[in-house]
Amino acid sequence: MKYKRSERLVFMTEYLTRRPNDLIPLTTFVNKFNQAKSSISEDIRILKEVFESEGIGLIQTTAGASGGVTFIPRISKGKAEQIVGHFSEELSKQNRLLPGGYLYMSDLVGNTRVMDEISGLIVTMYEDKKIDTVVTIATKGIPLAHAVARKLNVPVAVIRKDNKITEGSTVSVNYVSGSTRKIETMILAKRTLEDGARVLVVDDFLRAGGSISGVIRLMEEFQAEVVGVSVLVESKDIVDRVFTDYTSIAKVANIDEYNETFDVEPGNCLEFFNKG
Amino acid sequence: MKYKRSERLVFMTEYLTRRPNDLIPLTTFVNKFNQAKSSISEDIRILKEVFESEGIGLIQTTAGASGGVTFIPRISKGKAEQIVGHFSEELSKQNRLLPGGYLYMSDLVGNTRVMDEISGLIVTMYEDKKIDTVVTIATKGIPLAHAVARKLNVPVAVIRKDNKITEGSTVSVNYVSGSTRKIETMILAKRTLEDGARVLVVDDFLRAGGSISGVIRLMEEFQAEVVGVSVLVESKDIVDRVFTDYTSIAKVANIDEYNETFDVEPGNCLEFFNKG
Repeated sequence: MKYKRSERLVFMTEYLTRRPNDLIPLTTFVNKFNQAKSSISEDIRILKEVFESEGIGLIQTTAGASGGVTFIPRISKGKAEQIVGHFSEELSKQNRLLPGGYLYMSDLVGNTRVMDEISGLIVTMYEDKKIDTVVTIATKGIPLAHAVARKLNVPVAVIRKDNKITEGSTVSVNYVSGSTRKIETMILAKRTLEDGARVLVVDDFLRAGGSISGVIRLMEEFQAEVVGVSVLVESKDIVDRVFTDYTSIAKVANIDEYNETFDVEPGNCLEFFNKG
Repeated sequence: MKYKRSERLVFMTEYLTRRPNDLIPLTTFVNKFNQAKSSISEDIRILKEVFESEGIGLIQTTAGASGGVTFIPRISKGKAEQIVGHFSEELSKQNRLLPGGYLYMSDLVGNTRVMDEISGLIVTMYEDKKIDTVVTIATKGIPLAHAVARKLNVPVAVIRKDNKITEGSTVSVNYVSGSTRKIETMILAKRTLEDGARVLVVDDFLRAGGSISGVIRLMEEFQAEVVGVSVLVESKDIVDRVFTDYTSIAKVANIDEYNETFDVEPGNCLEFFNKG
């Protein structure tokens, strides 16, 4: 079969966007379409232009024998503001407030479109950090961790608070929960992480930061390096945290259980995009 | 800016594949590109041909004022066999066997590419079931549930075994675990599911089926209808299950803890693709 340029472009767009951060050898397309390398390179040039001008991401081409093309999802400042705005608006809905001043967020975490959009924002911030694994804590962080890992093309490791026989040998640390001051345990299967792995920690909610401090300690046991921490929502009402280097998509402040009100602000992630 | 057909096709391919099962009005593209409807329709015809001949999925066009175009991910029999083969091969690795005859699968569940491929297989089987929500049980089912929900364009509801304050009001049922014969509890936040919802239940491992029977009972409390059950792996060594209507990607049989051996076979999902 002879493919026209228009047909090749449809195929290549679908192929590349389904494999973000994966080096695709040019020969994949040369062989598939039975075309000269120069025609395929011209196809990729068109793709690259559209991807960059439409803010879909970067198309990186690598020359040489082991060369090829990589799709790197990356969003613009405008798009980041739009995502943060949309998320903050959803988060502001009055009926989220639960007894105890907690926020109901399962619908947001369970919405694959929302997770997908926010993961685009997170990978843009951490794309150059050479991340090997996304680490999260069961259970609400898992959807975001997977959405992020999908775009980074790395695996997800899930830390649990209970020991399951299906994990094999595990490493555990005890930590003090920042909000309840209770001692809790965190467990990760030994074979989930390689020594020296560079990890991005992703979670749904950052209160006092006890659990994330626990994750950082657990990562030390694995000789892994935490190169970033990113959370969906942080509580602004808490001032002292053990660690301060993290990004957030939104902040929740002034939770007033009695009057059933709370405020939502953009998270600190926009600082990254404002820097340019 | 004037877009050429090749550029429009790149944009439209990325736009549609990122929004599976979403009706996109033709006017979205007509306005974006400032082109006549006839040109856009011709673009879509090209896209449709490539998607169908390459087994990417269907492009459905709906006529009329509220008309538009929908990308429906659907894989072929050949692709399904390839996915099942690849997954079975990964699953066969000797070092998965844990004490107690359990299989280590966290690496597969944590691999976003594997989850993405398998979700394509699952949505092809359940695409015509008008699913409103994908339901799973924490924690290992969550990645597959999200991958499936992303392609169906529906939310995910996660059933937990512990009560968390962040869930608000919940509904719970007790059930007897098929393997341990212990009484356990399952909990789902009340506002996660609407009355009468049609749900697809997704999980990682099916042993005796106690937990999935629990899910079915819990769904009755929500007046929800279970229109399908799909699992990553089923244990073939178990003969009597409370329910028999489910699909699986792979089967594990003859687990021999002493000799550290087990067999892997394709799951029953291929029967769907063999029917045509």
